[in-house]
Amino acid sequence: MAGSEATPRRADPAALVERMLGGDRLALARLITHLENRSAAVPAIMQAIHARGRDAYVVGVTGPPGAGKSTVVDRLTALLRAEDETVGIVAVDPSSPFSGGAVLGDRIRMQAHALDPGVFIRSMATRGSLGGLARATGEVAKLLGAAGYRWVLVETVGVGQTELDIMKIADTTVVVLVPESGDAIQTMKAGLMEVADVFVVNKADRAGAPALMAELKFAAHLHASSTASRRDVEWETPVLSLQAQHGVGVPELLTDVRRHRAALEASGAFAARRRERVRAELEALLVDAFRGRVDRALHAGRVKAVFDEVVAGARDPYSAAAAILPVISLEPS
Amino acid sequence: MAGSEATPRRADPAALVERMLGGDRLALARLITHLENRSAAVPAIMQAIHARGRDAYVVGVTGPPGAGKSTVVDRLTALLRAEDETVGIVAVDPSSPFSGGAVLGDRIRMQAHALDPGVFIRSMATRGSLGGLARATGEVAKLLGAAGYRWVLVETVGVGQTELDIMKIADTTVVVLVPESGDAIQTMKAGLMEVADVFVVNKADRAGAPALMAELKFAAHLHASSTASRRDVEWETPVLSLQAQHGVGVPELLTDVRRHRAALEASGAFAARRRERVRAELEALLVDAFRGRVDRALHAGRVKAVFDEVVAGARDPYSAAAAILPVISLEPS
Repeated sequence: MAGSEATPRRADPAALVERMLGGDRLALARLITHLENRSAAVPAIMQAIHARGRDAYVVGVTGPPGAGKSTVVDRLTALLRAEDETVGIVAVDPSSPFSGGAVLGDRIRMQAHALDPGVFIRSMATRGSLGGLARATGEVAKLLGAAGYRWVLVETVGVGQTELDIMKIADTTVVVLVPESGDAIQTMKAGLMEVADVFVVNKADRAGAPALMAELKFAAHLHASSTASRRDVEWETPVLSLQAQHGVGVPELLTDVRRHRAALEASGAFAARRRERVRAELEALLVDAFRGRVDRALHAGRVKAVFDEVVAGARDPYSAAAAILPVISLEPS
Repeated sequence: MAGSEATPRRADPAALVERMLGGDRLALARLITHLENRSAAVPAIMQAIHARGRDAYVVGVTGPPGAGKSTVVDRLTALLRAEDETVGIVAVDPSSPFSGGAVLGDRIRMQAHALDPGVFIRSMATRGSLGGLARATGEVAKLLGAAGYRWVLVETVGVGQTELDIMKIADTTVVVLVPESGDAIQTMKAGLMEVADVFVVNKADRAGAPALMAELKFAAHLHASSTASRRDVEWETPVLSLQAQHGVGVPELLTDVRRHRAALEASGAFAARRRERVRAELEALLVDAFRGRVDRALHAGRVKAVFDEVVAGARDPYSAAAAILPVISLEPS
């Protein structure tokens, strides 16, 4: 698959979308490549699919390297397929090409599903900005929904800020930890609490698992109590014991994901969050366009003069920004 | 110090700036608190100091936890003080309050300089967004320059994306590693190469130090060759062996920092980078203001109608953004 995507033939995005809607997986792969590379065709693609896309339910799976995320995704996929649900899988690696090895290994393990027409698997890596990666991932999830996949599983390596940002596109986020991942957890504890809808302690037969589970349960309970007043859904993050390798605990995980979905829908949070996501998406697109206008303005005329004053130390940035703002043109270029 | 800052008395920012310029350290501490909390007084403060500030030379010191960054900063400070240079130290912890322990411990070690009027030490933690933290850190560096400190040493914990962002405010960035920090390095290798102007292998008497040094030298050489055409300064990141605890290698580190500064100034990169930093700062302030206008516009009228269409799935975000952009008002509010 990678070989044929490496040098995509020029093809009309609208035609690719038509082919994708007809079930052409190669067209889908090429469209994803457009999104991943932030090609000029992205607006046209998103315009063409928006009316056709029944949104998929997006489940994020994150956690430190070695926690067994791919195995969890693999087993969840098998369960969903047994129920005849269709599944799109996006594995996102926000770090540099230097650390791509592990992800590739994981992908090879996932090839069990590669011949199943009800499953579509795709790896994505950083091209340019990390912010762009999160946006591309969200658009790929929409594309997979439009292509007919009912579930999209987004797997990211790591528990850093970027991974947490990527997880914002998920309806339900599963954080997979292992007893050994103590350090990573300590560093990101508050962030993990904010993002986790379900905690999974994988490789639960290892020493330290009960202690980690107890710690997470305590933290989840504390977090639920302390944030109860400002949460949009009544939900205390459950902590599940898993041995994904042997399938132990995976049905319970799927049950909890569905419980979370039901809670979101019952409380109205599901609709509110999708609305907020649209707002953030619109704002990001507007800010991108605005940045372009600013950069152009800084090169000439009155705005450049003010900019030069700041560089020379003759003016502070705050008063300069106030002077520049009304001069920026937002007219169509 | 922390106690008196926790509940700052209301004071006119301009008056605080006057007192700070007169050498009042408490006024300086209060001004930093304003910047850290992103208070409404920030524009007035930056306006008041911009004409007074001779910029300090900013050295960033970053690396994984436990690498000995604080000791490096401590020893560099002692060397600079011996030359009668003044030093402001900003220790930035971008992670959650949960992991604040180590930083506090480091700060206590640094109290050796706390009674020296030529040294000012301040810790900063996340308040709100991480982007805001990087901006606040840059403004604190300017403030310290205005207060008369010739050098500002910015220390951040960790080697994640946020730390690398914070390091963008540094003129010279020192990355401190230890033989044990292998995993963190692997994850961030490309990012570290991009950001490091000087590599330090601390605790160089430990096993694994020579291998790490050889690896870093190879990577630095490779990076310098492969990016030579697009770099603004001729510089191959040196790799220094340190035992900061015993002061071994610290004079050589200071020499390399000064060599880097001289290379930046000779090539014109110093001025070009400061100009680019001003551009980024202006752009960030403009984008903040623009976001405010967008959020207001989304609540009413034509823009809200378009927004609602996207939420309902009747319109795609890209065409919606194109329709909304010209309607946003940039007039002074």
